[in-house]
Order: sequence, then structure tokens, then C-alpha cells
Amino acid sequence: MSYPAPLEALIDAFERFPGIGRRSAERMAFFALRDPRAKELPQVVRDALERTLRCRVCGNVGASDPCELCGDAKRDARVVLVVEEPRDVEAVERAGVHKGRYFVLMGALNPATGGDERSLNLRGLIERAAKGEYDEVILGTDPDAEGEATATLVLRALEKSGAKVRVTRLARGLPAGSALEYLHRGILEDAMNGRVELRTRPQSG
Amino acid sequence: MSYPAPLEALIDAFERFPGIGRRSAERMAFFALRDPRAKELPQVVRDALERTLRCRVCGNVGASDPCELCGDAKRDARVVLVVEEPRDVEAVERAGVHKGRYFVLMGALNPATGGDERSLNLRGLIERAAKGEYDEVILGTDPDAEGEATATLVLRALEKSGAKVRVTRLARGLPAGSALEYLHRGILEDAMNGRVELRTRPQSG
Repeated sequence: MSYPAPLEALIDAFERFPGIGRRSAERMAFFALRDPRAKELPQVVRDALERTLRCRVCGNVGASDPCELCGDAKRDARVVLVVEEPRDVEAVERAGVHKGRYFVLMGALNPATGGDERSLNLRGLIERAAKGEYDEVILGTDPDAEGEATATLVLRALEKSGAKVRVTRLARGLPAGSALEYLHRGILEDAMNGRVELRTRPQSG
Repeated sequence: MSYPAPLEALIDAFERFPGIGRRSAERMAFFALRDPRAKELPQVVRDALERTLRCRVCGNVGASDPCELCGDAKRDARVVLVVEEPRDVEAVERAGVHKGRYFVLMGALNPATGGDERSLNLRGLIERAAKGEYDEVILGTDPDAEGEATATLVLRALEKSGAKVRVTRLARGLPAGSALEYLHRGILEDAMNGRVELRTRPQSG
């Protein structure tokens, strides 16, 4: 079975997106053919590519450069949270748990393939750390294998740079609001290994 | 609408279980009426009540007293993990992350109502801790409001008893294998508050 070449090209274009398989790409393409608003799609794509800026400071995408967060003088510029993706910035901002700056790596290393660390946005962070612009770098990569590998890479790069900076990572353990009985091995292992001292053993006598 | 009294009584009996509403209780009752194996239910219930033992040491339910885990000499009797429910013991055992003993509270405090701490199985733990039988008590209650309130109660009781014991709690934070962008505020807050030092700030010069 073969579609007209332009339709095949559209299916191929959709299929290149992460998480989109051949079947989904076909469905998207057929939907585009019959959706009246699909006429606007070329312009929408063009606008997104041309009018979305990358912040020169943190690497995040936004409508301005520097972005709104890097330009906000009320935020603590000496504490930087390093995340993988722009969506992570959104999640942490929604939660309101960080009052410092962000740095967006725009990806993560794949520990199986070794990954391509050159594709990560990393240099600006290391340079600013080496210049002493930060008191603390918080590693906020995902709690999975890619995130671990990426955090290790960032830590090593910071050490190699000779930056005089404190490096921390977000706590791993039991997710608030959950129940022990439903949690899998990796979570329980983190929770056990990272357990927190509430009371040290009092000395006898 | 009213059912025959014996059927009403069965519906009521089912409805008393946690998580079972009136509609579910009705469905269960009607199912019992037509399921041939329902004849065995009275005996099954009786056996469960009569032949399931509570372990005198940890409070867990099992087929023997002391239970299999408390009777296992290969487990470290000086480190005890305190959990709310028997299901929590199962979950931690499945994960294989604890080689000590357990202590099962058989419930948790409700922080809204103050809760009834007398309903908790707690005395054995405090007595054994006061006698110096433990090096470490690990609080492994659920990471929710009930679990917090319960952990606080256990910690206070241990302190009040004068037990010379180290008390820890399981780590809270990002659940292994998840992605930052999907986690809610409470989890991100725990992760930020409990963040772990990877590298202290080197001194200048």
C-alpha cells in the first residue's frame, strides 16, 4: 500500500516526532487533510520557529531573551536549578518551590548509547560557575537512568572547571501522598538508602 | 425499596468494609446469592478469624506466632522498620530492601480527628526500645498526612520512654523512574527541602 508522495512526506514528517509511531502519524496526516484549520499549520510552524527565542542565559525557550525568569531581579541569581527540559521549568514554577534561576540542558544523556553530550546545552552553566556566579548548583534531572547519567556529567564538568560552588541534587524517596504498599523496588530502595536521621542514639549514662 | 431482612443484613455487613459503598455492597450480596461457592463463605471467614495468628513480637498477622520474619535468626533483630499495615511488610519484602525486623502498627492516626492512638499496636515497640533491644528504629509510615502524624507519635513515644535508640525515617522525594514534569507540588517540595549534598563549596584560595 502506498500513498501519494506528498502525503507520504507528511506522514514521515509526523513520524519523526518522539512518541509518534507510523499509525499515529497516518491518523494525524489524514486528520490534517480534512481539518479546515490545517491550512494555518504551515504558518503556525513557521511562527514557532522564527518567533520563539532561546534565552542566552538559561537556554530555555521563550518570547524574550533573556527570558522572563532570568530577567527577574527578585529571583536569587546565585542559586541555579539545572533541569532537562523546558517542561521541567514549568512544573517547578507551578509548584512554586524554587526562588532561584534555572538552567535548561535541553535533553539528557542516554546511558546505554553513551549519548551525545555535545548536544546538551551545558557550556553557559560551567562558564558561569567557574566565574563564581553561583553559590549553589541544584541538579534537578529526572530520577531515572538518563537523569542520573546527565547529573553525573554535570557534576564532573563542574568539578573539572575548578568552580568553587556547592552542588546538590533533589531528594529521592517516597513520593508525598502515596502509600508504601503500591511503590516499586527502586523507590523503596532510594527511600531506605536516603533515610533521614530524626534522633541520633543518645549516649549511655 | 426494601430487601428481606437477612439480605439487608448481608448488604450492611459488606458495606461496613473500607471502600465498599452501598451499591457495591448490594452487588456483592446479590453475587453471593447466586454464586455456588458462597456456601463456603461462612467457613472461610471463620477459619480466617480463628486460624490467623497475630505475631506477639511485631503485631503482624500470619500463620505462626512468632511470625516467620520475627523467627528468622538471619534477620538483624536490632534494626526495626515500623510500618502501618501488613501489606507494607509485603511490599518492602518484595522489594528486598530491608534485612532487619518489622513492627506493624495496624493502622495510622487521622490528623483531622486527632485519631485514636490507643487503637495502634505500639506498646511492644516502645517496651523493646526502652529495654535497649534496638540500635535503630526506622519510621516507614506512608508519606501522607496520616503517616506523618503517626510517625510523630511514634517518635515522641520513643523519646518519652527514654529509649537509647537512633530513630530515622524513610527518605521522601522524587520517585525513582518518574519524570519531573509530571510530579505534583508536595513531591517537588520534599525533593527541594531534602536535597542532598554532592559537593560542598570548596574554600577559596
